[in-house]
Amino acid sequence: MKKFINQPQDVTRELLEGFALAYDDFVRLEKNRLIVSRKLDTQPPRVSIVGMGGSGHEPAPIGFVGPGMLDVSVSGNIFVSPGADAVTSAILRADRGKGVLLIVLNHAADLIAAHLAVESCVQKGIDARMVIIQEDISAAPRSNAQDRRGLVGCIPAYKIAGAAAGMGKSLDEVTRITQRFADQMATLAVGVRGATHPVTGALLAKFDEKDMEIGMGQHGEEGGGRQPLRSADDTATIMLGALLKDLNVQGQEKVLLLINGMGATTLMELLIVYRKCVSFLKEKHIELVAKAVGNFLTVQEAAGFQMFIARMDEQLLTLWNEPCNTPCWKKS
Amino acid sequence: MKKFINQPQDVTRELLEGFALAYDDFVRLEKNRLIVSRKLDTQPPRVSIVGMGGSGHEPAPIGFVGPGMLDVSVSGNIFVSPGADAVTSAILRADRGKGVLLIVLNHAADLIAAHLAVESCVQKGIDARMVIIQEDISAAPRSNAQDRRGLVGCIPAYKIAGAAAGMGKSLDEVTRITQRFADQMATLAVGVRGATHPVTGALLAKFDEKDMEIGMGQHGEEGGGRQPLRSADDTATIMLGALLKDLNVQGQEKVLLLINGMGATTLMELLIVYRKCVSFLKEKHIELVAKAVGNFLTVQEAAGFQMFIARMDEQLLTLWNEPCNTPCWKKS
Repeated sequence: MKKFINQPQDVTRELLEGFALAYDDFVRLEKNRLIVSRKLDTQPPRVSIVGMGGSGHEPAPIGFVGPGMLDVSVSGNIFVSPGADAVTSAILRADRGKGVLLIVLNHAADLIAAHLAVESCVQKGIDARMVIIQEDISAAPRSNAQDRRGLVGCIPAYKIAGAAAGMGKSLDEVTRITQRFADQMATLAVGVRGATHPVTGALLAKFDEKDMEIGMGQHGEEGGGRQPLRSADDTATIMLGALLKDLNVQGQEKVLLLINGMGATTLMELLIVYRKCVSFLKEKHIELVAKAVGNFLTVQEAAGFQMFIARMDEQLLTLWNEPCNTPCWKKS
Repeated sequence: MKKFINQPQDVTRELLEGFALAYDDFVRLEKNRLIVSRKLDTQPPRVSIVGMGGSGHEPAPIGFVGPGMLDVSVSGNIFVSPGADAVTSAILRADRGKGVLLIVLNHAADLIAAHLAVESCVQKGIDARMVIIQEDISAAPRSNAQDRRGLVGCIPAYKIAGAAAGMGKSLDEVTRITQRFADQMATLAVGVRGATHPVTGALLAKFDEKDMEIGMGQHGEEGGGRQPLRSADDTATIMLGALLKDLNVQGQEKVLLLINGMGATTLMELLIVYRKCVSFLKEKHIELVAKAVGNFLTVQEAAGFQMFIARMDEQLLTLWNEPCNTPCWKKS
């Protein structure tokens, strides 16, 4: 393993400290590994949004704390969920009296911690709710969505939820809108090179010199789509076709498309893939109304990308286009 | 080579098309591979800023076209300078009657193209100037700066020049300020894994399992600093110490620090390195007044990073803090 770290057990603490120093105009690092928006305490009270997850996927979730997205994020160790106590402290810290929406990815330990934390906060009199991101179409059929992993869909969900909260909507409304968005999303990942765990040095996934795998989880979980590497255009066509089919998107419908690099895949490649997606959607007469290309949720130095689509309506599009100002997502 | 591309000879065209589609609210792709800011023709006439360089280093330079940075960028093939004709067309396209500053990195072919283009534009009656970025301290001593490679310093130079132009300064002033900034910058790169050329498949640099190299050019050029991999803190200390020494930065002086990932090095690592730099500067009583951490100029899937510092004064800091709105650098 060739990574610029110090003692492996210090990786999470040091990366959070570095982040808080690099973005001290946006956030503060507080105890329990909370990254807290500097605007949280000074803005007029409104619904707060909390993100959570293991470290090692930077910039997710810490990079999206700020006006228009998350109010607080809470990090676990590398690829490990933060515990229920830490998540509880994040919800309590975030609450401004208008309630808190927690956005959690469907991974067993994250879900357990999230459920315990929400329950504990409700008992303390906080109105806390949860939306689960579970959009990996390779993991299970849509009819069995609780078995689908959560992937990069959390990032656009932060955007939609944060915008709804910023517009002063009630927790009921923010939760309903974010849940509707979550129900209309689908992601498929493709990997070509595995990552190493920065603490243990373990290889997360192994590939032959000419293989790719469509349907990979973000910790190297297999998805059954091992096959010879294809061209960018062929890969894009296969993946986008599967996503549109899963969501049953028809001509004339509106979609959001996001291409998320996993780490070592270049922006060059992501742009070439994106280009093909645009022409594919055009052929199908599907309207591309919102888009993003970049590294939002990575898996260390893994190579590959996640392709995300969501069915959009006017309300979701308005929220998508609202301003936000976070370290890694800014819209004016 | 495992990359998501189509025909190798189409890589540059397709990535530029994908970029223009992904950021169609910011830029247009025009002939000669120009990426042109959508605001160029509609804003009140002022000095224009042009960037240039080979492709394969995304997001540089295309990601920085927009208000407050570049007005036009012109791309060559992968790792190849755009030709003099293309650079000439970029300057002509950018000019709004107030003159054009071209920012070029010190690589032989880029310089030749830039010189020919500026000369040709001056003959056509355009007031065109040039600032050369040559800040790689590993390539030659400061007294011999014309032998220093240009590295990530071009990106903060786009920011300073674009801000000065945006404030309505004359071409004389914009050039003088940008040149002063360029004279006060220093970069050192460290590599741990090489990249493959996306067209030829050639390996750009080779590393043993436990080696790093301090002082690497962005096409794998050697810098003489081959050594066993060190911790993040040790690497940061060695590199920052060398940069401060090269620039002769003393206590109480103000600096800008930028950490640029080369591609496969994680944000996690960059943040850990950044953290150490902050405490190192504090120990030396050097004031860190501006900073940036991220992937600004990459070298495909190479692993490593470039550490950049610049001596700052009040005027440069004001320009650094001016708003900008480009695909990959936004400040409100």
